[in-house]
Amino acid sequence: MAAAVGIIMGSKSDWPTMQYTAEMLDKLQVEYEVKVVSAHRTPDLLFDYAKEAQSRGLKVIIAGAGGAAHLPGMVASQTALPVLGVPVKSRALNGLDSLLSIVQMPGGVAVGTLAIGDAGAKNAGLLAAQILGTHDQDLQQRVEQFRQEQTDDVLEQPDPRNPD
Amino acid sequence: MAAAVGIIMGSKSDWPTMQYTAEMLDKLQVEYEVKVVSAHRTPDLLFDYAKEAQSRGLKVIIAGAGGAAHLPGMVASQTALPVLGVPVKSRALNGLDSLLSIVQMPGGVAVGTLAIGDAGAKNAGLLAAQILGTHDQDLQQRVEQFRQEQTDDVLEQPDPRNPD
Amino acid sequence: MAAAVGIIMGSKSDWPTMQYTAEMLDKLQVEYEVKVVSAHRTPDLLFDYAKEAQSRGLKVIIAGAGGAAHLPGMVASQTALPVLGVPVKSRALNGLDSLLSIVQMPGGVAVGTLAIGDAGAKNAGLLAAQILGTHDQDLQQRVEQFRQEQTDDVLEQPDPRNPD
Amino acid sequence: MAAAVGIIMGSKSDWPTMQYTAEMLDKLQVEYEVKVVSAHRTPDLLFDYAKEAQSRGLKVIIAGAGGAAHLPGMVASQTALPVLGVPVKSRALNGLDSLLSIVQMPGGVAVGTLAIGDAGAKNAGLLAAQILGTHDQDLQQRVEQFRQEQTDDVLEQPDPRNPD
Amino acid sequence: MAAAVGIIMGSKSDWPTMQYTAEMLDKLQVEYEVKVVSAHRTPDLLFDYAKEAQSRGLKVIIAGAGGAAHLPGMVASQTALPVLGVPVKSRALNGLDSLLSIVQMPGGVAVGTLAIGDAGAKNAGLLAAQILGTHDQDLQQRVEQFRQEQTDDVLEQPDPRNPD
Amino acid sequence: MAAAVGIIMGSKSDWPTMQYTAEMLDKLQVEYEVKVVSAHRTPDLLFDYAKEAQSRGLKVIIAGAGGAAHLPGMVASQTALPVLGVPVKSRALNGLDSLLSIVQMPGGVAVGTLAIGDAGAKNAGLLAAQILGTHDQDLQQRVEQFRQEQTDDVLEQPDPRNPD
Amino acid sequence: MAAAVGIIMGSKSDWPTMQYTAEMLDKLQVEYEVKVVSAHRTPDLLFDYAKEAQSRGLKVIIAGAGGAAHLPGMVASQTALPVLGVPVKSRALNGLDSLLSIVQMPGGVAVGTLAIGDAGAKNAGLLAAQILGTHDQDLQQRVEQFRQEQTDDVLEQPDPRNPD
Amino acid sequence: MAAAVGIIMGSKSDWPTMQYTAEMLDKLQVEYEVKVVSAHRTPDLLFDYAKEAQSRGLKVIIAGAGGAAHLPGMVASQTALPVLGVPVKSRALNGLDSLLSIVQMPGGVAVGTLAIGDAGAKNAGLLAAQILGTHDQDLQQRVEQFRQEQTDDVLEQPDPRNPD
Repeated sequence: MAAAVGIIMGSKSDWPTMQYTAEMLDKLQVEYEVKVVSAHRTPDLLFDYAKEAQSRGLKVIIAGAGGAAHLPGMVASQTALPVLGVPVKSRALNGLDSLLSIVQMPGGVAVGTLAIGDAGAKNAGLLAAQILGTHDQDLQQRVEQFRQEQTDDVLEQPDPRNPD
Repeated sequence: MAAAVGIIMGSKSDWPTMQYTAEMLDKLQVEYEVKVVSAHRTPDLLFDYAKEAQSRGLKVIIAGAGGAAHLPGMVASQTALPVLGVPVKSRALNGLDSLLSIVQMPGGVAVGTLAIGDAGAKNAGLLAAQILGTHDQDLQQRVEQFRQEQTDDVLEQPDPRNPD
Repeated sequence: MAAAVGIIMGSKSDWPTMQYTAEMLDKLQVEYEVKVVSAHRTPDLLFDYAKEAQSRGLKVIIAGAGGAAHLPGMVASQTALPVLGVPVKSRALNGLDSLLSIVQMPGGVAVGTLAIGDAGAKNAGLLAAQILGTHDQDLQQRVEQFRQEQTDDVLEQPDPRNPD
Repeated sequence: MAAAVGIIMGSKSDWPTMQYTAEMLDKLQVEYEVKVVSAHRTPDLLFDYAKEAQSRGLKVIIAGAGGAAHLPGMVASQTALPVLGVPVKSRALNGLDSLLSIVQMPGGVAVGTLAIGDAGAKNAGLLAAQILGTHDQDLQQRVEQFRQEQTDDVLEQPDPRNPD
Repeated sequence: MAAAVGIIMGSKSDWPTMQYTAEMLDKLQVEYEVKVVSAHRTPDLLFDYAKEAQSRGLKVIIAGAGGAAHLPGMVASQTALPVLGVPVKSRALNGLDSLLSIVQMPGGVAVGTLAIGDAGAKNAGLLAAQILGTHDQDLQQRVEQFRQEQTDDVLEQPDPRNPD
Repeated sequence: MAAAVGIIMGSKSDWPTMQYTAEMLDKLQVEYEVKVVSAHRTPDLLFDYAKEAQSRGLKVIIAGAGGAAHLPGMVASQTALPVLGVPVKSRALNGLDSLLSIVQMPGGVAVGTLAIGDAGAKNAGLLAAQILGTHDQDLQQRVEQFRQEQTDDVLEQPDPRNPD
Repeated sequence: MAAAVGIIMGSKSDWPTMQYTAEMLDKLQVEYEVKVVSAHRTPDLLFDYAKEAQSRGLKVIIAGAGGAAHLPGMVASQTALPVLGVPVKSRALNGLDSLLSIVQMPGGVAVGTLAIGDAGAKNAGLLAAQILGTHDQDLQQRVEQFRQEQTDDVLEQPDPRNPD
Repeated sequence: MAAAVGIIMGSKSDWPTMQYTAEMLDKLQVEYEVKVVSAHRTPDLLFDYAKEAQSRGLKVIIAGAGGAAHLPGMVASQTALPVLGVPVKSRALNGLDSLLSIVQMPGGVAVGTLAIGDAGAKNAGLLAAQILGTHDQDLQQRVEQFRQEQTDDVLEQPDPRNPD
């Protein structure tokens, strides 16, 4: 089955963060592909990737990047597919630069931005599944089941003083 | 035709921002509904709204809020539909508080966050259309046409020194 | 004796911070209960908890949370009891996001917010005791005694160059 | 009837903000007093005020201040009564300095901090009423009624596009 | 004579800022061209512009943009010419987002960043002239003369209390 | 000889920072005393200290504190002696809270603020010596000599690649 | 009588802020001089000014500057006199850049920094007088009298609701 | 061959950052010199260095500094050569102070600023080479080759999950 979600990132060093996106999509049984595409080092590849994404069957693109994080916005400028952005934690400013570089897009080109770091990466996978789930009842049910399970996890161990 | 997108906001005073969401959906011919739902003043309404959204036929929820902006995240906690958040510019901190309150969600409940203020509101409408467009070719084409038009607007007036 | 203070937190991982609240209440001999209640993962539990708190005899609720910290504000939206909020230090932004998400509440629903992290957790317990102490002279005296002791600790060792 | 709440502020120029505290207490029928007490210009008055507050019958102190806002914390250091702090919006830094100066108290002396500016001032009055309401059923009911009314305000005008 | 400096900007609305770049280059008698090139709305134009800049005879590119300001970095990714970036003041965050989006480039693709707003735009023109001046003695002398004149302006009116 | 400089700090835990003040005063042969005086835990001691400082012969007071750092400003409110403030690095916000709490004093009560942390502590000692040096030529010469020595240190090892 | 305090500023446009320094020194009857000295536009003048200040009889130098505010630190690097810095409010970042550029000096060269803007300018004059007052009893008494008057101003009008 | 680029830094402790500038210039075969020049500890040396740079044959100056980083701006004030600034990561504020102190120069004296820390140091070397390359075709080709190689590095290892 063809990948429905494309996970791209600006650098191999973003993978320890972006792996949480992949893990979430695995859990929800969503097909995806993973690739390093750098806005600054491989701009032509970025354009090709963005322009061909739709015809290749992708439905959602998730882009993670840090610092002056241009990857999500530049992909979004080249495709009508929904693009989600994950601000990777940066060394000096802890991802505040990544966050502002991704989220503060001008009117007319949109990036749905998630939290800085691992939680954001995980949620990018979840939100992509929710998007696909709007037209895939089975997937939507898997999302609901995942959500129910994490609710149950809390309900079963209500006292934080107990060991796990 | 039933509304596909629900636009909610924490206060009537958010409408001058959130109207740009409605305007964008109008332009792209997407059906929507508009309602004030306050996380803090009408928490029960918020829960009812979130829980019934899917069965009422909504596909995407867009929530705008300012300051300690809890509306988008609390809606997201109650539905498997994709939720987009618009940080409304706040009085003291210019929307930085709104942005962080919306985007920094913990892993497991996702909000796709747009830019602070009018641009973000506009893009929430656009991103909702892109999400719906993944399964509606006509809508996807209207998105592409809108994008082409704004590209043409730039190309036709390349010299910023000319009057409009 | 029934608990007068309810300590809740968004995740088990908040306990290393929130234990300082419990410790302070122990020292001041105030009865309390401790529970994980997640705004995002267990919203229904949160609502039940908030709505029943008063009839269960609680007088003050202390809620700790990190990142997009919605727990204190959402509890406050459902009860007339005073609610205190503790911003737990977050990974990327060191709790600045937690602080703004908790303190910047709109007019009409209040959260008394303490400092980020351990000091805030400790002070949440202290402030709860001060609140209860407004109608409990014995408790108020224990607060005064605690305060006197920490004053004496400083006065007895005025030279910072001495070992403890 | 003696005042139950003391509203103090660092400067006469804080009154346009702090008047919202008085207005809220008026609405909830809580007796209060209002006074300018400056941490920096009248430190002796501040100490006298704080030390005598309890014997004068006050139950809660609300202190508003801007910039290097030391008033709330210094009052708290001299009384066992609960102290609430309102960060007044400052000229250069929009109240971020006021907020951090008030909320970041060290463990052992607590200030329950509200939002920057008018909303925080309003909520300080509300929270003081909630504190008093823990031992005054009539007041607690007035708080609940106030909260119900603001809920009804939203419910009655759900469409933000209508004029008020 | 062919333009040595290309001034581009993300939107016509950046011209009130970027005109100070043009003004400085006029004063220093450096030939330049001015064009709206949007990273997000006209990405293909951006790539063509960047790739052809060198062969068209440009020596320095100055790019101004606001918010999630991707223009300078994306131009830099496509040319070996030196690229200077001007962070345009943004509505919500006063240009802090613009600054971080431009300056925090990853190692391997460089943008020489100037101050936020008008001063930065003016200095971008000056720095471009200084760069060209490294191989154009006449221009370097005009830079020195400009600098001497602004020194003289201060020296001639040392008392700030005098009217201009 | 009586102490000319009083070094106070809010907590024993500030000593690892404030020791650099003592070290600098030692080097410049300025007499000083060292004491823990907490604005929040020992407010009465703080007032006594500030009010008696002048009659005890002190000429300059240096106060270090972290977080909601009220010590320097509160001392300054009680004495006509010059007061210098050292923002101690705080746990969550790295001393930004300490800095703003100390430096943003209202007009009418002044604190000369130094850098966050060790460098600021060192410079507080230096600035105190410079202040005393305005009426003590020998001390002024020792300051000049210290400054010359640190200049020489740089001049003697101009190549950063050499080992020390 | 020769000036004891030198007030310098980076630009004539800083005078509306720095005039409060002059006003305070007038009130306290301290002789001063006023001059525009720009770190960036007149670096040689800056060096001459700093190096000759002591022999010309100045005792304290007050330097105001905005943005990348290098004036106070560069003056301090050239004189053993105490230097006070006033961060002038900047256009984009409201003086946060000015503050950090002035206060974050490295160990070995000190600038006593005051608050951003008018309050800081006023307090720079006050602190200079306090410094001079350590060896001028009459001046110290005028400082005390000024402080007493501002205390009395508060005490005489304790109710903020009264018109001035 | 004489050095075309002068690398200076405020302290020996900046070398672990600034060595990346040297490394990049080595890779691109650009001659350079390296020296500690402190704005605050060796201001005279700084002025001599800046004033003689041009006559000594330097074409570009790269200055790295941290905290209240005045070195780049002060060098720029004394030479018509292009000056690039590298904000070195500071201890308390992670280089945000360094960045603002360098980039926020007033109109009339320009510093081309790079990213905080190692990436910025590397890019300062690259940008210097690009500047020199505008009149040195061989160098420009080496820049292009370097850029191509880093593009190839990404293209050859597109899957981030593979080990290096």
